[in-house]
Amino acid sequence: MTIQRVVGGNGLAGARPIMLVIAGDSAAGKTTLTRGLVDALGAERITRVCVDDYHRYDRAERKTLPFTPLHPDCNYLEIMEQHLQLLSLGQPILKPVYDHHDGSLGRPVLVEPREFIVVEGLFPLYSKLARACADITVFLDPPEQQRRDWKVRRDTTRRGYTEEEVLRDLDKRERDSADYIRPQRTHADIVVRFAPIEERGEPPDAPPSAMVLLRPTIRHPDLSSILGEDTRQAMHLKLLRDDDGKPVDALHVHNYASPETARSVAEAIWRELGVPEPLPDSLGEIEPGNVSPALGLTQLILLFHLFQAQRA
Amino acid sequence: MTIQRVVGGNGLAGARPIMLVIAGDSAAGKTTLTRGLVDALGAERITRVCVDDYHRYDRAERKTLPFTPLHPDCNYLEIMEQHLQLLSLGQPILKPVYDHHDGSLGRPVLVEPREFIVVEGLFPLYSKLARACADITVFLDPPEQQRRDWKVRRDTTRRGYTEEEVLRDLDKRERDSADYIRPQRTHADIVVRFAPIEERGEPPDAPPSAMVLLRPTIRHPDLSSILGEDTRQAMHLKLLRDDDGKPVDALHVHNYASPETARSVAEAIWRELGVPEPLPDSLGEIEPGNVSPALGLTQLILLFHLFQAQRA
Repeated sequence: MTIQRVVGGNGLAGARPIMLVIAGDSAAGKTTLTRGLVDALGAERITRVCVDDYHRYDRAERKTLPFTPLHPDCNYLEIMEQHLQLLSLGQPILKPVYDHHDGSLGRPVLVEPREFIVVEGLFPLYSKLARACADITVFLDPPEQQRRDWKVRRDTTRRGYTEEEVLRDLDKRERDSADYIRPQRTHADIVVRFAPIEERGEPPDAPPSAMVLLRPTIRHPDLSSILGEDTRQAMHLKLLRDDDGKPVDALHVHNYASPETARSVAEAIWRELGVPEPLPDSLGEIEPGNVSPALGLTQLILLFHLFQAQRA
Repeated sequence: MTIQRVVGGNGLAGARPIMLVIAGDSAAGKTTLTRGLVDALGAERITRVCVDDYHRYDRAERKTLPFTPLHPDCNYLEIMEQHLQLLSLGQPILKPVYDHHDGSLGRPVLVEPREFIVVEGLFPLYSKLARACADITVFLDPPEQQRRDWKVRRDTTRRGYTEEEVLRDLDKRERDSADYIRPQRTHADIVVRFAPIEERGEPPDAPPSAMVLLRPTIRHPDLSSILGEDTRQAMHLKLLRDDDGKPVDALHVHNYASPETARSVAEAIWRELGVPEPLPDSLGEIEPGNVSPALGLTQLILLFHLFQAQRA
């Protein structure tokens, strides 16, 4: 479902921006997934918007309040919706800025839409109006224990918390997460889970494979000509019932595929798309020097959708 | 000219907000004029929005730049327009905040439209799109020497500047003022000048009378049944040619009228309007204990327009 759009003089040359929305809990991998897309397309073609800055209260104010940042009432969600609408109409916004280091709200920043917009955050699929702005919706759905590990690692190394503080915070947020964040999964066209695939015998500490659920709510790339016995080691498609009983295509992207096989599958998908640009080689980077074929192929599926939506 | 509006669930009970826009240079009297209206209607009925916070640069950044805050490029005017549109549609905005004391840009604030909105600032009549949001447009047009005196007094007593600094700043801003601020006068339905009326022999240091130019761009209150020989001492209407040669009605509101006469004229105008509320007695206050009948009657004309626009 897409809202009606009008486009003005914003350098978009008459075309409306294509909006990809990625929702997921804190430390679910949103930024890592997004970064490869932004690097692949370049800042002049894609605008990245993190919608976790619409805090109604700063950290000091929240200390006196009964809810966590995962509670809708703790956020200006109506303004977030308004800003998503404006961006999807090709209009600039003056976006609030929350400083994750000191927990303060500061000077807002001008965000101008480009050809593509990738929105990521805790709540972008929460309301019908927000969802209506999106061309492609994604929910990041890591196993909870893995997300907790990721969050501990990130918040202790990059946000100045102790492990005890992060774990206490995770427990405090659990209820709001279950009530408001995880239910967004049902509204995604694509659900992504980076995790070892147990049924394939992948050990829990292996570099995670990806399970990408492709729901029939949008048109997915036709992978039939690409996926076969020779590519099975890297990627295969499986018909499943989702947790809610609905049928989905599950794309398993195996992280143990050889770089060569992963590359040849990526190139086949890229050819299928038929864009003139060469296959971006920024895909799959978790951090400098640490490249995951499963992440790279997942990002490629999202890139495929961005280009396909633009042509539609 | 008014843009098409739709109204959602914002407590406006289906009616769109009525928007009064007051433009004028720094220290032209915008805040004083506005305050009486807000006091008269109450914060639950009228939202005051100062649109001088859309600075693109803070004070420190401006020091390295060739233009003053009166230059359009120094402001996010496109965002100001967007916010005026949203407010006129009954939508909330997250408004930027500029701190006039330390010159910094800070945490934005939620502004929710009420039944009436009064917008005041340097640029709200600058662009066609901004003007299209207004129901009634006003330009404050004090004699330049008087505005300079007001600005020196305000900025030395309330904003921590020395007189030399204010005068230097005024000179630096003169060109941008002439190029971008004063030309907005031509777009106002009502032009207000608080000044002694020389042709009536008022000395330059007398409490200022008001000259209110009522342009035929909107329907003004019919004052014919009110204005007569007995009220002439307080207020009279005169057909004039404006500076641009166009015909206007000029309402002279004399400050030397006795409080009784001013009061009886005010009550006659109020009866003419036929609203159930009693005549507000907050009108005319320049500062606590200093009440100007000319200011009060000017505010009353604007109140009259607000109610009339709401009924239209």
